Amino acid sequence: MIKVAVIGTGFIGSVHAKNIARHPGAELEAVCDANIEFAKKTAAITGAKAVGDIAQIFTNKDIQAVLIATPTDTHVNYLKRAADAGKAIYCEKPIGLNYEEAEQAVNAVRAAGVPVMLGFNRRFDASHAAVKEAVARGDVGKIEIVQLTSRGPKPPPISYVKVSGGQLRDQTIHFFDLLRWLTNDEPVEVYAIGAALVDPAIGEAGDVDTSIVSIRMASGALCQIDSSRRAAYGYDERIEVFGSEGLAESARQSFRGLSLYRGSQIIKDGLHAGWFERIEQSYYEAIDAFLKSLEKGTPPSPSLEDGLKAQLIADKATESIKTGRAVKVG
Amino acid sequence: MIKVAVIGTGFIGSVHAKNIARHPGAELEAVCDANIEFAKKTAAITGAKAVGDIAQIFTNKDIQAVLIATPTDTHVNYLKRAADAGKAIYCEKPIGLNYEEAEQAVNAVRAAGVPVMLGFNRRFDASHAAVKEAVARGDVGKIEIVQLTSRGPKPPPISYVKVSGGQLRDQTIHFFDLLRWLTNDEPVEVYAIGAALVDPAIGEAGDVDTSIVSIRMASGALCQIDSSRRAAYGYDERIEVFGSEGLAESARQSFRGLSLYRGSQIIKDGLHAGWFERIEQSYYEAIDAFLKSLEKGTPPSPSLEDGLKAQLIADKATESIKTGRAVKVG
Amino acid sequence: MIKVAVIGTGFIGSVHAKNIARHPGAELEAVCDANIEFAKKTAAITGAKAVGDIAQIFTNKDIQAVLIATPTDTHVNYLKRAADAGKAIYCEKPIGLNYEEAEQAVNAVRAAGVPVMLGFNRRFDASHAAVKEAVARGDVGKIEIVQLTSRGPKPPPISYVKVSGGQLRDQTIHFFDLLRWLTNDEPVEVYAIGAALVDPAIGEAGDVDTSIVSIRMASGALCQIDSSRRAAYGYDERIEVFGSEGLAESARQSFRGLSLYRGSQIIKDGLHAGWFERIEQSYYEAIDAFLKSLEKGTPPSPSLEDGLKAQLIADKATESIKTGRAVKVG
Amino acid sequence: MIKVAVIGTGFIGSVHAKNIARHPGAELEAVCDANIEFAKKTAAITGAKAVGDIAQIFTNKDIQAVLIATPTDTHVNYLKRAADAGKAIYCEKPIGLNYEEAEQAVNAVRAAGVPVMLGFNRRFDASHAAVKEAVARGDVGKIEIVQLTSRGPKPPPISYVKVSGGQLRDQTIHFFDLLRWLTNDEPVEVYAIGAALVDPAIGEAGDVDTSIVSIRMASGALCQIDSSRRAAYGYDERIEVFGSEGLAESARQSFRGLSLYRGSQIIKDGLHAGWFERIEQSYYEAIDAFLKSLEKGTPPSPSLEDGLKAQLIADKATESIKTGRAVKVG
Repeated sequence: MIKVAVIGTGFIGSVHAKNIARHPGAELEAVCDANIEFAKKTAAITGAKAVGDIAQIFTNKDIQAVLIATPTDTHVNYLKRAADAGKAIYCEKPIGLNYEEAEQAVNAVRAAGVPVMLGFNRRFDASHAAVKEAVARGDVGKIEIVQLTSRGPKPPPISYVKVSGGQLRDQTIHFFDLLRWLTNDEPVEVYAIGAALVDPAIGEAGDVDTSIVSIRMASGALCQIDSSRRAAYGYDERIEVFGSEGLAESARQSFRGLSLYRGSQIIKDGLHAGWFERIEQSYYEAIDAFLKSLEKGTPPSPSLEDGLKAQLIADKATESIKTGRAVKVG
Repeated sequence: MIKVAVIGTGFIGSVHAKNIARHPGAELEAVCDANIEFAKKTAAITGAKAVGDIAQIFTNKDIQAVLIATPTDTHVNYLKRAADAGKAIYCEKPIGLNYEEAEQAVNAVRAAGVPVMLGFNRRFDASHAAVKEAVARGDVGKIEIVQLTSRGPKPPPISYVKVSGGQLRDQTIHFFDLLRWLTNDEPVEVYAIGAALVDPAIGEAGDVDTSIVSIRMASGALCQIDSSRRAAYGYDERIEVFGSEGLAESARQSFRGLSLYRGSQIIKDGLHAGWFERIEQSYYEAIDAFLKSLEKGTPPSPSLEDGLKAQLIADKATESIKTGRAVKVG
Repeated sequence: MIKVAVIGTGFIGSVHAKNIARHPGAELEAVCDANIEFAKKTAAITGAKAVGDIAQIFTNKDIQAVLIATPTDTHVNYLKRAADAGKAIYCEKPIGLNYEEAEQAVNAVRAAGVPVMLGFNRRFDASHAAVKEAVARGDVGKIEIVQLTSRGPKPPPISYVKVSGGQLRDQTIHFFDLLRWLTNDEPVEVYAIGAALVDPAIGEAGDVDTSIVSIRMASGALCQIDSSRRAAYGYDERIEVFGSEGLAESARQSFRGLSLYRGSQIIKDGLHAGWFERIEQSYYEAIDAFLKSLEKGTPPSPSLEDGLKAQLIADKATESIKTGRAVKVG
Repeated sequence: MIKVAVIGTGFIGSVHAKNIARHPGAELEAVCDANIEFAKKTAAITGAKAVGDIAQIFTNKDIQAVLIATPTDTHVNYLKRAADAGKAIYCEKPIGLNYEEAEQAVNAVRAAGVPVMLGFNRRFDASHAAVKEAVARGDVGKIEIVQLTSRGPKPPPISYVKVSGGQLRDQTIHFFDLLRWLTNDEPVEVYAIGAALVDPAIGEAGDVDTSIVSIRMASGALCQIDSSRRAAYGYDERIEVFGSEGLAESARQSFRGLSLYRGSQIIKDGLHAGWFERIEQSYYEAIDAFLKSLEKGTPPSPSLEDGLKAQLIADKATESIKTGRAVKVG
C-alpha cells in the first residue's frame, strides 16, 4: 500500500483523488489545497485528511508519493520541493509555462533521483494503447502517415485561454506526445496554421481555436493533427497510423449503443459529450501504471523528458503559426 | 455465345433480359410475352426480337436456353414444354402453385434430361455467398443457430396476395432455400406463427403479413426466420449463422455512405429502399452462373429439386400457422 | 444515507456490496454470509462489518434495507424474514425455484407492505433503456416483431445446471422480463425448442444449452428469443424492436475501439469477454434506482410481480420444450 | 438521343464507351484510337464503329459530342480541334501538362462557345455528393476543417510517374477539385510536404509517393489532404467536412458485407481493391450529368475553369514541396 497525497483539488485533482482512494494498491493519506474548503470537499468523498498548507505534505514522512494537480504556474515549484522531499511524483501536464523553466525543473528533479511520471493519460486509453501495441507488433509495417484529431467539445473561458499558452501548448500537446509514443520517433520539422473561427475573443487574446499541424518525422513519416476547441457533436478524438502493411485506428467512440432505423436513415447514438467522458477511464489506468512502477521500482512512463519533448514541439508549432514558416525541431 | 430467349417480360423478366443482353457469354435472341406490346418494350431496350406467340420460342432451333419469368400458374406448363423442346431452362421461383404440380413438373423435366436452374438468386448475393463460404470453410464450426430476417419494404397488392400462396410460400421461401444452402442440412420440424399486423385486408384474404418460423434441422441446429411485408425503413435482409467456433453475418446494408454527426447523434444513410435495390446484382450473378454451367456442362445450381424442397418447407410452415402445431418435414 | 446489508457474498453479492459502498446515497453496514470467511473478504474491500449469522441482520434496527444475493433456494425464506423484519428488499432473480413457492413469497411480502425490487438489472443497461425510451416515445410505432439474443460466453458447471431450473428459467428469464418491459405487453402463447448442442452433459442433466422461443403477445406482436450457453466470440446480447414506424436496436457492443485494416479485411475489437463485462454498469444503475425509490417513497421497479410473471413465462416455455407443443400463458 | 464518339480507347476510354453505349439518352457512334486494333476491341463490346483516324471524328457531322480520353499531352490539341468542329466535349482530367497550355486551351474552347465538361467524376460519387448536399443545406454550419484522404492501392509504373506531373498533379488534383466544390470556396495559401516512402525509384524520378497538404481557404477554413500511392488494404478514400454545427463524412466503404465474429475479434470485409472499384459508378453518373446538361442546354459542370483552378492548386502545392515554404494561390 503506497501512501499518496493529492495536491490541488480542482476538477482533475478530485478525479485523481477518487481514483487513488479506490485503488487497491494505494492509500490516499491527504488531499491538499490552498483553499482548505476545496480540500475538505474532496476529503469528504474520499475519506482522506484535508490539508491547507502544502508544506505539511512535503514534511509528512508517511507520504511516499504526491500527485500535483495545481495550476500550471505552480508545477515547477512543487516539482522541485517534492523532489527535495524525496517523494515519488505524478505531475499533471504541462510541466511549466515555458520550455526553459520546465527544463530547469526536470534537471532539478533528475538530480534528486525520485521517480516521476507526467500525466499524459491518453497513452492509457485502452483503444489508443491497442493502436500502439498493433504498431509495435508490426501490424502496420513501416509508419508512413499519422493522422490525429482532437475536437471539442467547447472553448474554455477566455481567462483560461489567456494563461494556457495557446491551443497547441494546451490541447494539441497531448497529441504531440501521442505522436512520439505511437511512432517511437521524433519530429524534425513542424508547420502549423490556425485561426480563431469559433470565438473571435480567442483571436483577440492572441490565440487560435482551430488549427492544423504538419510534421515530418526523423524516419520520414508524415503527420497531420487537426484541433478544434469546439465540436457541435460532442468530443471527437481519433487516431490513425498508416504504414506499409496496413492501418491501425482508434476510432470515434459512441456514448451508448442505440440505433434507430427510420425512413432512409439510421440514427445512432453519437460521441461522448466531452473529453472527460471519453477518456475518464484512462486517468485510473495512468494512476495504476504509476503505482505499479513504484511497486516494481521501474521508471514511470511517460517521463518528465517526454513532457519536455512534447512542450518543445508545441513551442515550435506555435512559432510556425506566428511566422507562417516551417520550423525545425530539436 | 449461348442464345437465350426470355419468356415473360414483366418487371423481373425485363431485368433478366437486360442482364442477358449485357452478358458477354450470351446473346438475347428473343423476348416473348403474351402481350406483344410488353415484349416490344423490352425488345427496344435490349435489341432482341419481340415475340408474342410462345410456341415460336420452343420451335426455334437457334434458341438454346429459355428463361421463364411468367406468372407462377404457367411455370409448370412452360417447364414441360421447354424440356420437351430440349431447351436449357432458367425458371423463376416458385416452381408451381402447389407441391404436387411442382413435383410432376420436376419429374417431367428430369426425364427430358435438360439442364435446369431455379431462380433462387439470393444465393448469389456477394455477402450471403461469403457467409456460405465462411461456413463451408469451417469458420463458425458446427452450426447451432441460424437467424434469417426479411422485412419490407411494402405489402404487395391484395390481388397479388390472393394468388401468392401466402407469405411463407412467396416471401419466406427464399429464406427456406438459403437455410438449406447455408447449412447443407435439412429441416425435420417446423413451427410458425403469424398475423396480419400490417394490413387487415391481408388477413381477410386468409394470409399473414408478419410471421416467425422456428425450425429444427436434422443436425440438431435451430433456426428462426422472421418475415414482414413492410419495413418503414426500406428493405431489411440479414443472415446470421452461429456455431461452435464463431458467428458469420451478412449484415444490413446501407444504400449510401453519408454520416452526419450532429448534437448527440450520428445520422447515417439507411437501408436500400426496396428488395430489388438490395439484391439487384445477384440477378446478374445468377444468370452468369447459369450460363457458366451450360458452358461447362455441369448441372446448374440451385436445382429444381432445391425449389421443390423449399416449397415443401413453405407448405409445412403454412400448415403450422393454420393448425398452431409443429409439423414434421419430409 | 440509507443503511444497507448485503446477504450472500458470492460473486454477485460482492459486486452489489462494492456498488453500495461507493454509492453516495447509501452506507454499507454489514455483509453477511453463512461462510463468515467469505463475508470477511468482502468486508475488507468495502469497509463494512462481516456477519456470519443472518438473524443478526434481520434484528439489527439500524439496517433499513437488505440485498439478497444468496442461492435461489434460500430466496423465499429470506424474503419472508426480511419482510417480517420490515426491511426494504432488493432480491436477486429468480424469486424461487418454482412458481408456487415464489407466489407464496410474493404474497407474504406484499402483506408486510415493505418496498421490494427484483434484480432484473438488464433493464438498467443504458442502451437497452434507450430502446425502451425510443419505443415508449413511439419512435417505432406499433410493435410487431421483437428479437432478443443472449449467447455465451461459457456453459456454467453441471452442478449449477442441475439446480438452475434449466436454461429458460436461468438465462432466458432476463429476456422474458425485457420483453414484457420493452413492449408493455403480456405473452399469450409460447413455443420453444432446444437441444444440448454445446455439452452433452447438459442434456444428460435434463437441460438444454441452445434454444429458441417463439412468443405471441396479447397485442398480436410476435417475439423470438435465441439463447446459447456458449459463444466462441465472447458474450453476445442484442435487442431489436421492430414496429410500424421503424426499428430500435441495442446492438452488439465491442470491448474496445481498435480497427486494423490489412489486406482485404478490417479486423475490429470484438465483443466483451463475458456477460458481466457487458452489463457490469447496469448493476450499479439498478442499485441507484432502488435507493432513489426508497428515498422518494415510490414503489421500486421491477417489482416482485414482474419476477413472478417472467417466471411464469419461463415455466411455460420449459413445458413447451418438453411437450413439443405451444403453451398458453396466463 | 445524342450521338457521341469516344476518342482514346485505353482503360478509361473503354469504360466511358461502355457507359455511353448503355445510356438510354445516348448513341455511341464511334470509338477512335490511333491504334485501330484497340478501337476495334472496344467497338466489338459496344457495337460502335471503330475509327483509326481522329480527323474522321471531327468531320463527321452526325457526331454531336466527343469524349476525350487520350493521353494528357494530346488533350489541348483535341480540345481545340473538337471546339473548332463545334462538338460538345467531355474531357478527361487534367486539361494539360502545365497551367499555361491548359489556359490557352480553355480560352480557345470558350471562344468557340461549345459546352465542355471536365472529368472530375468523383463529384458524382453518391456519398461524396451527399456530403456536398448536406454542407449546402447548412447541416454542418460554417465550414472550419476539411479532411480528405486518398491512399492506394498501388504505385503506377515509373514510366507513368515520369510523365504524370507528380503525385499532387496526378492523384491529389481530384481532391483539390473536391475541396473547392465541397466548400464553394477558394484556397489562398498552400503548404505541402512529401517523400518517396513507398518506392525509392519514385524519388529518383523526382516525385513523391506520400504527401500531406495544408490549405487555408479564403473563408478562413483549414484543410488537410493526405495522399499515398499505396495502401496495403485496398483503396482508401475518405471525406470529412467539419463545421460550426456538425460533421459530414463520406466514410470508407467496404467491398462486401461479411462479418466474422471469432475469439476477441470481428473480422469484416475490407475496402475495395482499387480506386476504380470504389468509384466505378461515378463514371456513369458523370456521363449522365453531361448528357442531361446537353439536353437541357445548361452549362456542364465541372467546367474547364474548374479544371484550371485545380491545376493551379496542384502547381502551387508542388512548388511548396520543392521550396519547403507555404505558397500563395491565385
